[in-house]
Amino acid sequence: MLSQELQHKIDFKTKPLGALGYLETLALQIGMIQNTTSPKLLHPHMVVFAADHGIAKAGVSAYPQEVTYQMVMNFVHGGAAMNVFCKQNNIELKIVDAGVNFDFPEELNLIHKKVRKSSRNILEEPAMTVEEYQLAKENGKSVVAEIAITGCNIIGFGEMGIGNTSASSMIMSQLLHIPIEECVGRGTGLNDEQLKNKVEILSRAISLYPEVKTADEIIQTFGGLEITQMIGAMQEAFEQKMIILIDGFIATVAITALWKQNPEILNSCIFCHVSDEQAHQTLLSILGKKAVINLNLRVGEGTGCALAYPLIQSAVNFLNEMSSFEDAQISNKD
Amino acid sequence: MLSQELQHKIDFKTKPLGALGYLETLALQIGMIQNTTSPKLLHPHMVVFAADHGIAKAGVSAYPQEVTYQMVMNFVHGGAAMNVFCKQNNIELKIVDAGVNFDFPEELNLIHKKVRKSSRNILEEPAMTVEEYQLAKENGKSVVAEIAITGCNIIGFGEMGIGNTSASSMIMSQLLHIPIEECVGRGTGLNDEQLKNKVEILSRAISLYPEVKTADEIIQTFGGLEITQMIGAMQEAFEQKMIILIDGFIATVAITALWKQNPEILNSCIFCHVSDEQAHQTLLSILGKKAVINLNLRVGEGTGCALAYPLIQSAVNFLNEMSSFEDAQISNKD
Repeated sequence: MLSQELQHKIDFKTKPLGALGYLETLALQIGMIQNTTSPKLLHPHMVVFAADHGIAKAGVSAYPQEVTYQMVMNFVHGGAAMNVFCKQNNIELKIVDAGVNFDFPEELNLIHKKVRKSSRNILEEPAMTVEEYQLAKENGKSVVAEIAITGCNIIGFGEMGIGNTSASSMIMSQLLHIPIEECVGRGTGLNDEQLKNKVEILSRAISLYPEVKTADEIIQTFGGLEITQMIGAMQEAFEQKMIILIDGFIATVAITALWKQNPEILNSCIFCHVSDEQAHQTLLSILGKKAVINLNLRVGEGTGCALAYPLIQSAVNFLNEMSSFEDAQISNKD
Repeated sequence: MLSQELQHKIDFKTKPLGALGYLETLALQIGMIQNTTSPKLLHPHMVVFAADHGIAKAGVSAYPQEVTYQMVMNFVHGGAAMNVFCKQNNIELKIVDAGVNFDFPEELNLIHKKVRKSSRNILEEPAMTVEEYQLAKENGKSVVAEIAITGCNIIGFGEMGIGNTSASSMIMSQLLHIPIEECVGRGTGLNDEQLKNKVEILSRAISLYPEVKTADEIIQTFGGLEITQMIGAMQEAFEQKMIILIDGFIATVAITALWKQNPEILNSCIFCHVSDEQAHQTLLSILGKKAVINLNLRVGEGTGCALAYPLIQSAVNFLNEMSSFEDAQISNKD
């Protein structure tokens, strides 16, 4: 059996049993995803989905809505944290306009998948119509399908969208039946009063849609266009047997929606970063997953994946390159 | 003031305030060490000091003593975990024979700094004479002095020596007046009975030297030749204004000995890895330091430094390469 062969290969490397800790867990998982004892990471990609949120106008974020398109321009010009870390670690970075409230020039180095300019304001109507929701998922799938042609077998997803922690908190609350207060964090920097205000607004929004039940209905009603495209993209990555890198709270909410429909998808996921935000820790503990790093990042964009990538590469490298006790003629423990 | 200039540069990068978490702490620290707002990591090196321990014969380790020289040969042939991770992250790896109980051929790719074949058995006499102790420190210093000629400004230290967690536990206990039971771990894999036996042997050893007081006397009596050379090496790295990368329990004990004499040395140190071992966590909390990663490694060799290195590079890169709000014309938070 492959899992036993992998474990044997790991155990007979020249190190005490289990001494590479979490890297051994990753090596085993990656071998299983790729169905081999000699896995390889090929053409790593990160995709950042950007979109605006109707609810941003209600004052749930510390930043104004125009920051979404400004940050997209920053990505395109190479100045964001995500650009720096992807460049450092040789990860191809793709930026997707999933629904930003701005007209980007056609010639910009951007994947144009805009469904509409911003999701709708859920204090007035569902974030997306059923048709917009379906289109967003299809758009996300198509982005990954095209990347797959390059031979990429490991892909991570980031997001940019002022207001998207609000959408994620509502989705988490509705998917898992957890009170909204326990699903809300300070996002990118709310003070106490702003946090209280955010909880009140989100509670009101949720109360407007008592009939919403399935994961699809929850995303369509409370989701953002970038979260929905990310869900489609993760589904496609799973079908393409890629390793799926999960970044922070928002990406974890997205994979949780898929997990509710197909628990097996978690086998393909590496959770890259956990922050001190309680809601994210709650989610990981429900999914039974541990993250690779904890650097208290809260920048989003997929930065946790880009930063964790060299450690994931190290897991593959020790499996392929270290000597075994036999090769190196070293006395093993009795 | 430089610290304020650095903090300003960090705060005005295109990200929420503080959102790069621990990477921001590292960026500030590295800027301060190098006395610039544009630090650079140059010619990174890892040095692994290897030596044998007289006390190994008393059965304090799960592995036989010959594993020390066998692992040195494994390093030389490129097959150890440390080789794989240094190669991946473009870190120059140097292996030092600080006192291995084996005659290595002169032509081996090894830095020959053997003081004697193995430290003495502390159940019979101090681990080193005063002269051996002084020579070991000088040898460690000279290794770093030579590396400094390459322009290296960031250096980490690893160790290989069957029995060296025992030496480290005794040093920790004596330096910090902590009962030996709280300084002992399972090393590379002891069971309950072996652990109890280890505590008994180390208690007996300590009771033989009631007159030992200063840090120098403690290292000379209980230390190993690789630990002593590491201490000399760290001292030299500090004098050369290098960034000092601290690996696991043993390297943390070594820096603790220097910290007792000069608390300022900690400003130059980055603690790379913390494991679940209680004694190591106790030490870090006494030093008031947080580690970059926690992957539950217990392989030693300096692997925690080699694995954390890309994250340290990321801290430097965001500081140098990210746009500021002004550059990118992005609306900052009110």
